[in-house]
Parts: sequence; structure tokens; C-alpha cells
Amino acid sequence: MKILVANLGSTSFKYRLYEMSGSDAELLAQGGFERVTEYTPCIEEMLETLIGDKIIESGQDLDAVGFKTVLGKDVSGCVKADDQVLDALEGFKEVAPAHNPAYAEGIRCFQRMLPDLPRVALFETAFYQWATAASTTYAIPPAWRALGIRRYGFHGASHKFIAERTAELLGREDIAERARRLYQDGPTAFSGAPVRVISCHLGGSSSVTGICNGVAIGTSMGFSPQSGLPQNNRVGDLDSMAIPYVCKMLGLSVQEAEEQLTKDSGLLGLSGVSNDLRDILAAADDEHQEANLAVDVMVDSIRHWAGSFFFKMGGAEVIAFTAGIGENNPDIRESVCAGLEDLGIRIDPEANQKTVRGMEGIISAPDSAIKVLVIPANEELVVAREVCRFIQS
Amino acid sequence: MKILVANLGSTSFKYRLYEMSGSDAELLAQGGFERVTEYTPCIEEMLETLIGDKIIESGQDLDAVGFKTVLGKDVSGCVKADDQVLDALEGFKEVAPAHNPAYAEGIRCFQRMLPDLPRVALFETAFYQWATAASTTYAIPPAWRALGIRRYGFHGASHKFIAERTAELLGREDIAERARRLYQDGPTAFSGAPVRVISCHLGGSSSVTGICNGVAIGTSMGFSPQSGLPQNNRVGDLDSMAIPYVCKMLGLSVQEAEEQLTKDSGLLGLSGVSNDLRDILAAADDEHQEANLAVDVMVDSIRHWAGSFFFKMGGAEVIAFTAGIGENNPDIRESVCAGLEDLGIRIDPEANQKTVRGMEGIISAPDSAIKVLVIPANEELVVAREVCRFIQS
Repeated sequence: MKILVANLGSTSFKYRLYEMSGSDAELLAQGGFERVTEYTPCIEEMLETLIGDKIIESGQDLDAVGFKTVLGKDVSGCVKADDQVLDALEGFKEVAPAHNPAYAEGIRCFQRMLPDLPRVALFETAFYQWATAASTTYAIPPAWRALGIRRYGFHGASHKFIAERTAELLGREDIAERARRLYQDGPTAFSGAPVRVISCHLGGSSSVTGICNGVAIGTSMGFSPQSGLPQNNRVGDLDSMAIPYVCKMLGLSVQEAEEQLTKDSGLLGLSGVSNDLRDILAAADDEHQEANLAVDVMVDSIRHWAGSFFFKMGGAEVIAFTAGIGENNPDIRESVCAGLEDLGIRIDPEANQKTVRGMEGIISAPDSAIKVLVIPANEELVVAREVCRFIQS
Repeated sequence: MKILVANLGSTSFKYRLYEMSGSDAELLAQGGFERVTEYTPCIEEMLETLIGDKIIESGQDLDAVGFKTVLGKDVSGCVKADDQVLDALEGFKEVAPAHNPAYAEGIRCFQRMLPDLPRVALFETAFYQWATAASTTYAIPPAWRALGIRRYGFHGASHKFIAERTAELLGREDIAERARRLYQDGPTAFSGAPVRVISCHLGGSSSVTGICNGVAIGTSMGFSPQSGLPQNNRVGDLDSMAIPYVCKMLGLSVQEAEEQLTKDSGLLGLSGVSNDLRDILAAADDEHQEANLAVDVMVDSIRHWAGSFFFKMGGAEVIAFTAGIGENNPDIRESVCAGLEDLGIRIDPEANQKTVRGMEGIISAPDSAIKVLVIPANEELVVAREVCRFIQS
């Protein structure tokens, strides 16, 4: 089954083509275009390349195209990318201005050019559909809630993969299968010892998710991807009353304040060095006070959210790290897990240091009650797998 | 030693007079005025009453007056209420408009009328002076941080009393004394098994604080008392990006949005019933869906913050409940502690149900590794004690 994954930015178009067989996948081709103003010529050129390289004979050979959509109004899950999805993307274009209009346009282009090709939208919010109302509701006036302001959560594809993979690594095929089939079957009946996972997706964009028996109970990102952990240049959690105060004191419009919080904040705003943690860590080694602070704030925030889910789940079996920072920064992982021996968390310093990008591994000590794992992220592949499951069911 | 505690609202003046002897206190008198436009006549009338009732012979008999100030710019702690404190209150009058101008004016009135009476300000932020920069810093641009936007924390008097009293109840006089002397001596050297407390101050205004060996490591309220747990009619934690979105969609100014978040939100905004949990619980019993949701959101938020501190401290010895809701709602306490047996938390349902307002007690089962305590709040007395320690040192 040939699954195309289309990754659409406001000025970019990237794709990967997989040959899927169950959960196994072979990457057949990948490519991309930058400075894009129209997706149609990109799709044309992509098809020409795939045909020219003899990967497919025509567009008819493709079985589905998957879109990692961000946030839809009143729609989530892994679903047919139909008019309802287009409406949902349009309905929240103000909330995700960099992504929703791009995906809506991209889906329309595929609809026009390859009308018979099944189109599937995998929303980044999909994994949080079963979180309780208690955990997703803000204490705001009814008119605000009616606008759709609540905790949605993002990075769903990545965290759901962690749910599947951690269960496999624990030898819990029952939970792994429950997680894999979640978007098709919902949270199925379950018995047996719990598998509770704290999943730390740490990268340019970061979030922590609590996963109980393969199903997310909540995540650090709320209404927007600007909440939760400090991000590369986006703010993370902030007392909302800071905005009226700053508008008053600095004479900013609310739009100007918003722009500063989405572009000049996060690790960049704290460190003054860069929005890339590698640059910040290099500066921190030279005793750059702000750079050190940026790293410390990030670690503190990861612990804050990890602790919230640890407590709400009444404990945990696994802490997992994934994505750029999670895979490649043993020191950050060690700081997150420091001083938690009473909770049954003990890092193996040597195993931790030698587990770097692209490697899967256990970094906790053999006597650690809670396993600490590093699991490489591959978001396009995760999308391809979900699309494949959708098409087959 | 006669300590007067002055509680100043924008239209009210309340006082209590204590005879202090060490930590022991006798309440000699209390009174108050409503619909106040000027504090000077209130102070005059109070003095006349105290003299007329033969509690004092003149204002000279008073040893100090204490003010539970909220938030000062660049000043915190339990300190002489001098010009620096007045400047600090003025400097943050925009952040605490209901409190800072009132306290500044009240302190000035006492200065004029009883110039020889020592004036002491106990800031609500005082207990959080030793929280790490990592835990008090938002990931905002430098210009925002320069305005003083960071996590301050409030309810310091109440949570510090919990630090003292829990240590006494555990028989840990070393920690109790460390907590009592904190504002005079700072966090002194300490050895021995840790005493880690999760303190839940739940009332019209609510917060959760983590306390390690008598010193706060952080609290749920941040820059303003509108963050953290949902409050009576104030919002609690909210994705800051909701404000620009609401302003755009509902055509509100940022001031109007702010007003809705400080007056029409919290338990009132969720329930649509009342800002008083007693009314909401009565409605919830009749299966009022929004009322149930309000209670559930509050409990979820308490668990979120309790979990954060539990994890950051690497465990806990005590969970303590105090203030109106904390003292008088066994069901809320039980919900907060539900399903936490793996973490060593086990409520004794009978002890819990029979511990109601004004009663101190242990509500955990004898085999609960973590003690769950209910401790009545008495904020005026706490202020009197702190003022007494300040005067004597």
C-alpha cells in the first residue's frame, strides 16, 4: 500500500512516499519545495519525479495521501479529509494561521488534481479526544467557551507513537494494540496491570503528555501551541494577566503583545542567544547566565508537567524522551530525572550519555522501578501508519 | 506585647488586637468598618473604642501594627512599612489595584496619627523569596521581565503557617523552628530526614504550595492572583493566547477581556450558579451539569499543582488542607486524594467526613505513608505572630 504524506507550510511543500505492509514501512521517495506560492505545480512536479524515477506509473498507483493537520473547529481524529474537515480548518484559521489555511489549500489542490486518491487528515489534537472535560476546560465565561477555547493539545502523532512503542518495549502487546487501534476502535475494554507513561516530546516545539494504558489523559499544550513548556521562540505557560499589564505599561496593542509572545519569547527570549538549544547549551558552557536560565526554566517546566501527570495517574511505569532535544541531550534528560530516587526513578549515567540521536534505548538503571526510555521520533512515518490503518478499516 | 493587625480593603477597614506571648496569642478586640472612604476616622474611632473598653489606655500601649500587604515591586518579606514599602506598593498599583493603593493609604494614615507606633508590612509574596529563578521565570522577552513580570505567589502567610504547623504535628521541632524563623534568618542549615508538604489553601481564593523543610519551592499563583487554580470568580490558569483570540472574535478591548477574566470567570464562570462553592455543590447535587464541571475542574487543577510539587520534591510526607473549602469539604479532599494508593496516599473516609470547619485533624488512614492533615487557617493571627517575631528580632 503506497501512502503519500504531505507536509504543508505556508511557503513550503514536503512529501514522503511509503510502501506500507502492516506497521512495516519502506521509504520509497522524499522531496520538497521551498518558497512555494501555489501547491498545484508542486504536486505536478512531484508526480513527474515519482513517475520519472519509476516509483509509480501514474497517480493511480497511490493508495492515499495523509495530511498532518493541526487543529480543527469541532473536528479531530484521523478522518477523511472532506468538506467538513475543510470547514473545520477554516473555522480555526485565526488560531493556527500558519498551518490551517495551508492545509485547507493543499487538500483542495489534491482534490482537484487527483480526485480519486483518498485524502486523510490526521489532526495533531486527535490523541486527546478522550481526555476528561475536567482536564480540558478552562474556568472562563460561557461566551469564551462557546468560541472553542479549551485545552486541545498538539504533537498527538508523536505522543501516540510513544504510547505504542513503550508498550511494545515493555512486552505489553495488549496495550500496544489498544494504542494502535485507538482512532479506529476508541479506548477498548482493558484489564491487567496499568502501563502509565510520561511522554516528553522535546524539540523546537515541546510538550509532555500523560498516557494511561495507551490513551492520553492530557498534555502540556492547551488552546494553542504557545502554552505548556517554553518553546524555541514561543512563550509556553504564562499568567494571562501579563498581557493586559504589558499592553498598558509598554503601550502595545494586543496583536503586538501576541506577536512578541509567539516570536521573541521561549528559549530565545530567555537566553538572548538563539532559538536553538544547541547554541544555547554552547553559550551556557561559557557561564552565560541567561543561557543557563533558559535551560533551567525548560527543565523546571518539564518536571512541572511530568509531575502533574505522574500524580494524576497515581504513578508511572515509564518516562520516555523523544524528538530532537529528547533524543540528543543526555544532560537535559538527567536533569529532568534528578533527585527522584524516592519515586523509583534512577538514571544509568553511562547508558544515558551513550544514547544519542536516532538510537532507541533504556537509560534507567536496572534497579529503577520506573523505566526511562529514549525513542526516536519519525512523525511522517507515524502519519503514514495512521493513514494506512484508516484506509484498511 | 500588643499587636494590632489592620486589614484594609478599598472600602473597608477591619482590625484585630492580640496580646502576644511567644507564639501564644490572646484576641483582645476586633472590629471593622464598611463603606469606608477615609481610613483616618476609622483609626480614630478604633482607638476611642479600645480606650473606652479599657483594653488600652492610649495609642502608646500598642507595640506594633501589621499590614498583610499583597505585592510590592522589588520588595517582599516581613519588613518595616517605610517609604520603600510605600514606593513598592505604588510601583505595582496596576497589578494589585484593589489592594495596593488601599494599603499605601492605610500605612500613611497610621504614620500620621500614631507616628511612634512601629509599622510592619508582611507581604503575601514573602514565603516565595527562596524559590529558584528556574521556577519563577516566565519565558518572556527581556522587556517584559524588566517590568517585573514573574511568578510571585500569594497566600504566603497561610502557607507558611502550614509549614510551621505540619512540622509541629509531625514532631519535627527542628523544621517548625526553621519555618518560624524564616523571615528573620532565611533558610538555615538543615540536616535530617526531609519534611515535604503539599499545602492546599482552598477558599474564595485558592492556591497550592510545595514546601520543602519549611521553605516554599513554588506555588500555583504566578504573576497575579488570577492564575493557578480556578478562583471564586477569577480565571486561574489560562493559555495566554486566548486573550488575543477573544479580543478579535468578540470585539473586546484587552481591558474588557481582563475584566471578564477577573469577575465573570472561575467557579462562577464555569457553573453559572454562584461564586460560592457551597451554592455550586448544592446545585451539583441536583445533577446540574455545569456545577459538576466546576467542581471537577477545581479538583483536577488541585491535583495538577499538587502533582507538580510532589514530583519536584521527589515525594512528600504530608498533604495539608486549609481555608474555607479545604477545612469544610470532605468530598473535595477525598477527590483530590483519590486513586493515589500507589503513591502512599490513603484517606480514612470516616476521619475525613467528621473533620469539618475549625477542626484540626489527621484524615489519612493509619497505614498511609503520606499523612493527610486538615489545619484551620487564621490569617490575622499568623500576621500577628510574624509581626511579633519581627519586632522582637
